[in-house]
Amino acid sequence: MVADPASDPAAPTDPKTMPGPLAGVVVVDLTRVLAGPFATMTLSDLGARVIKVETPQGGDDARGFGPFVDGKSAYFGSLNRGKESIALNLKDADDRALFDRLLARADVLVENYRPGAMERLGYGWEALHQRHPRLIYAATSGFGHTGPARDRPAYDMVVQAMGGIMSLTGHGEGPPTRVGTSVGDITAGLFTTVGINAALYHRAQTGLGMKIDVSMLDCQIAILENALARYFATGRVPGPMGARHPSITPFEAFRTQDGYIVIAAGNDGLFASLAAALGAPDLARDPRFASNPARTTHVEALKEALEARLTTAPTAAWLDALEAAGVPCGPINDVGQALAQPQIAARNMVVDVTDPGGTPLKVAGNPIKLSAFEDPSTRPPPPSLDSDRARILAWLTAAETETARSA
Amino acid sequence: MVADPASDPAAPTDPKTMPGPLAGVVVVDLTRVLAGPFATMTLSDLGARVIKVETPQGGDDARGFGPFVDGKSAYFGSLNRGKESIALNLKDADDRALFDRLLARADVLVENYRPGAMERLGYGWEALHQRHPRLIYAATSGFGHTGPARDRPAYDMVVQAMGGIMSLTGHGEGPPTRVGTSVGDITAGLFTTVGINAALYHRAQTGLGMKIDVSMLDCQIAILENALARYFATGRVPGPMGARHPSITPFEAFRTQDGYIVIAAGNDGLFASLAAALGAPDLARDPRFASNPARTTHVEALKEALEARLTTAPTAAWLDALEAAGVPCGPINDVGQALAQPQIAARNMVVDVTDPGGTPLKVAGNPIKLSAFEDPSTRPPPPSLDSDRARILAWLTAAETETARSA
Repeated sequence: MVADPASDPAAPTDPKTMPGPLAGVVVVDLTRVLAGPFATMTLSDLGARVIKVETPQGGDDARGFGPFVDGKSAYFGSLNRGKESIALNLKDADDRALFDRLLARADVLVENYRPGAMERLGYGWEALHQRHPRLIYAATSGFGHTGPARDRPAYDMVVQAMGGIMSLTGHGEGPPTRVGTSVGDITAGLFTTVGINAALYHRAQTGLGMKIDVSMLDCQIAILENALARYFATGRVPGPMGARHPSITPFEAFRTQDGYIVIAAGNDGLFASLAAALGAPDLARDPRFASNPARTTHVEALKEALEARLTTAPTAAWLDALEAAGVPCGPINDVGQALAQPQIAARNMVVDVTDPGGTPLKVAGNPIKLSAFEDPSTRPPPPSLDSDRARILAWLTAAETETARSA
Repeated sequence: MVADPASDPAAPTDPKTMPGPLAGVVVVDLTRVLAGPFATMTLSDLGARVIKVETPQGGDDARGFGPFVDGKSAYFGSLNRGKESIALNLKDADDRALFDRLLARADVLVENYRPGAMERLGYGWEALHQRHPRLIYAATSGFGHTGPARDRPAYDMVVQAMGGIMSLTGHGEGPPTRVGTSVGDITAGLFTTVGINAALYHRAQTGLGMKIDVSMLDCQIAILENALARYFATGRVPGPMGARHPSITPFEAFRTQDGYIVIAAGNDGLFASLAAALGAPDLARDPRFASNPARTTHVEALKEALEARLTTAPTAAWLDALEAAGVPCGPINDVGQALAQPQIAARNMVVDVTDPGGTPLKVAGNPIKLSAFEDPSTRPPPPSLDSDRARILAWLTAAETETARSA
C-alpha cells in the first residue's frame, strides 16, 4: 500500500464530504455559475473536500438565479450542495495571505474566469507552480487559454452555436434549435473533471501538479462524433436530423395513437422482432427494408409503414409489446416523468439535500456508482456565502501547527 | 516521488500510446460502438495503452457503420485511433487463457455489454476482483447494473427520450427533436472516464481496484441542470425552449438581415453594451428591460425590439460590432464552419490520423490540454481486427518472464 504524501493527513474528515475515492483531496474552488461548479460538484460527489472561495460582494452569480425556495436559489443549491464557502477579496492583502495559506494546503485549484484574470491577480499558472509545485490547476473557459479567440467572452448558448451542435439539432425548417440543457457548460465541466482526476493520478507517481486548460468550444468539437466523421469522409455538411439517427434505421420517434414512441432497432434481428411485434412480419421480408443500408435509403417509406401500425394503439400498449419482444424503445418523457421512473429511484439518482435551517431540496444524484463506496441518498446543504470561514480557519491553523511540529 | 507499483515497469512504451498522465496504464477494452469506445479513446488521449479485445466474427459493430473511406469505417476510425486490437472468443478455452493473462497485466477493464453478460462469461466483478484485486472494472450500460430496468436494451435515442432532454429540446409544436449528436452515449462515456481516473487515483493510495457502474439513463438525469431545479422548486414541468435560455435574457438566437446570430447578454452591463452597439441605447433605459427578471418577463417584446435593429444588417457585421463591444455573441455554424474556425486549428482540435496503408483521416483532438504533456497533431491509425496480436503476445511473454525473474 502506497500513500500519496500530498493528501494531507491533518485534514479532518469534514462533515460535508462524501465517502469516495477522492477522500483527503482538498479542492479550492473559484468557479462560478455552471461549467466549473459542475466539475467541482462531481469532485465532491467522489469524496473531495471542496472549498468555494467567493467574492464578498454576493459571491457566485448563480446565487441570484431563480427559481428561489425560501429566498435561496434552488439552481445554486443543485450545483453547490456539499461544498464549503469562504468569502475572500483577492485584491485585499489580508485576504490574499489567507488565500495563499489555503493554496499551500490544497491539492487542486479550479477556476472558470476569462483567460488572463488569474495572471492579473498574481495567481497565474507559472507563479502558482513555482510556489506550489504539487498543486493541480484547472481552468475552464469559453475558448481556452491559447489561440486568437482566447479573450472572447462565451456562454453556453454561444459555444452551442459556434461548435456545430445547433446545426445538427432540429428539423431544418423554422428557427434554430438550442439543445435544451447547457451541454456547452456540462461537457466542459466533465472534460475538466477527467483532466483533474488524471492529473491527481499522475501526481501520485511524480509528485508534480500540472495545468489543465479546457475550452468549452473545443469540447463541442469533441462531441460531434458521427457528424464530424461524415463531414471529413464525404465533404458534405450534415444538417439537422429531427428525431432520427443519420445512419441507423429505424432509430427515430414515431407517431402512435396518442403521442410518440422512440424505437431503436438498427440491426436486422431487432428489425425482424419489431416487425413481428407490430403484427407486420412481412416488413422484414420487404427488400427495401432487408438491411440497415436499405432501410436508411428507404427511411420515409419505412416510417410510413411503421406508423400505419403504430397509430392503431396508444404508446403504453406498444411499449409493453416491444419491450416483451426485446426491441429497444421508450416513451418521450417530460422532466417530471423522467424523474418519476422507478429505475431512477432504484439508482438513487434523485437525492435529498437536508438543510436544518431551510426547506429541503431535491437534486440529481451521482451517476458514477462505485463498488468501494456507499452512495448516500442525502447531500449536505449548499453553503451560505462565507458560512464555513471559522471551520476553514481552524483547519488551516491545526494543519500548519502539525506541519511545524513534524518539521 | 512515489511510484504506483501497479504500473507495470515491464510495459514497453508502445508505438501507439500518446504522451500523458496515464502513461503506463494498460486498459483492456471490451467496448463496442460509442459510449465505451469514447471513454477508452479519452483514456488513450491521456496516455493509456488501450488493447481492444474484439470478437473474431467482425469485431466492433462500428466497423460496419458508414461513412467508409477505402472500405474502412471513418466512424470506427474516429473513435478507435491509437488503440490496439486482438480478436478473442471469450467462450473458447485457449482464448480465455490468453484473456486471463491480459487481465493479470491490466490496470483497467472496460465493457459496455448488457448487465449479466460478463457474469455469464465468468468475468463478473466478484470473480474478477478475487482473481485480480488491483484491477479496476468499469461497466457502461443503458440502465445500469441494478434496478428493475437493468435488463432492458437501450441506445442513445432511447435514453435521450426517457431521460427528459428531448422534452426540453425543440420548439413545442411539430414532431419531437433529438439532440443532434449522441449525448446519451457521450455523457455516459465521460462519467465513466471520470470514474476510472478517480479509481486509479484511489488505487494509488490503497492498492485496490473497484467496480464502476455507469448508466446512460442516470447520466441524462445528471445533466438536466436548471430544468431539474425548476421542476423540483416549482412543480411545473419545463417544456421545450426553442433557441433560448429559460431564465437569462437575452440569451437566444435572433434574426439578422441574412440569417441568425446568437447573443448572450444576461447581465445589465452587457445588456447596456448590447443596446449601445445596436444603436438603440434607449432599450437599456426601458423599465421593461431594466433587469434580467424584467427582461425575462418581457422576452417577446425584447426580441421584437432587438430584431428590429438586427434585421437591418447581416450577421457578419453584427458579429464585428458586438465583439468590439464585448458582448458575447456568435454565428450558428454548420459543422464545416465550426471545424474551419482559426481557434479550432490553434487549439489542435482537428488531428490527422496517419495510416501508412490507407487514406489519412481527420478526427477530433483531445480537449483536455495539459501543461505537462505535448498535444500531438497526429494520432496513430485505428487497428484492423486482430492487427496487434503479435505485439501483445510478445509483450505478455516479456512481462511474465520479468515477473518470474524478479520473484
